[in-house]
Amino acid sequence: MALAEKLEGAPHSKQSLRLWLRLLTCATTIEKKARAMLVERFATTLPRFDVLAALDRAPDGLTMGALSGQLLVSNGNVTAIVARLVADGLVSRTQERGDRRVLRVKLTARGRRDFRLFAAEHERWIECLLGDLGEGEVQQLLAGLARVKTSIERSGL
Amino acid sequence: MALAEKLEGAPHSKQSLRLWLRLLTCATTIEKKARAMLVERFATTLPRFDVLAALDRAPDGLTMGALSGQLLVSNGNVTAIVARLVADGLVSRTQERGDRRVLRVKLTARGRRDFRLFAAEHERWIECLLGDLGEGEVQQLLAGLARVKTSIERSGL
Repeated sequence: MALAEKLEGAPHSKQSLRLWLRLLTCATTIEKKARAMLVERFATTLPRFDVLAALDRAPDGLTMGALSGQLLVSNGNVTAIVARLVADGLVSRTQERGDRRVLRVKLTARGRRDFRLFAAEHERWIECLLGDLGEGEVQQLLAGLARVKTSIERSGL
Repeated sequence: MALAEKLEGAPHSKQSLRLWLRLLTCATTIEKKARAMLVERFATTLPRFDVLAALDRAPDGLTMGALSGQLLVSNGNVTAIVARLVADGLVSRTQERGDRRVLRVKLTARGRRDFRLFAAEHERWIECLLGDLGEGEVQQLLAGLARVKTSIERSGL
């Protein structure tokens, strides 16, 4: 890649830019492949998987607002995805007791079962993608990415 | 994050999953902030910036097909973005000499000037976000992410 070569031995700001581009490239590559895999094997989409994953982490369900905040993939329309999952019997949607304007969504038993199947397959698939990295390399990347997170927080941007 | 704690000291496949989630979280966080920054400071969007960046790297311009392949952000509609950039005078679009069905797009002088301004500001901004990382840390992350790329390629997925 010509851009990467240009940035070799460049000042810190160029290296930061390069790191951001490489981060974005890696994430985009895996994301594209994950989308294709989910459609192919489970006829499901990444935004849908992302919603199920957030709900699986919340045994008591989530309000719609909290759910939106928990998603990792930027979703066009959470309301539409949830409506579809409710229609498919994977998610229940009820009015909050204290405030009936608030909607709480929760996995149904079938939703949880289906998601766990997807998740196990997704994990095996990710392991195939990243299996070439040794344990030390994975740990080092995890630590480095944690530092990226801290740097972003400290920047106040 | 409860999920991260659960995965501490877990087998390699759990660590791979954890790495993917952290990569995605970092990329999504920066991407969201970049979108907001570009709108706020330049009244432009990330897909538009991405198209201009790809064209800036190609002095002779790109065919529409090659352009789509070069984008880092998944874009809804490259044709619409290019049409808008042409209308704004930042991009020219001409029929290929050899094959008139092929369209070649290229930055105009104004497009190049505008993009370079955006790019310089974008670089300063990324440096603020990632400036907390030392040069060694950046190098280590770049090397680790290159290994991620190799692992994905080798997986054949």
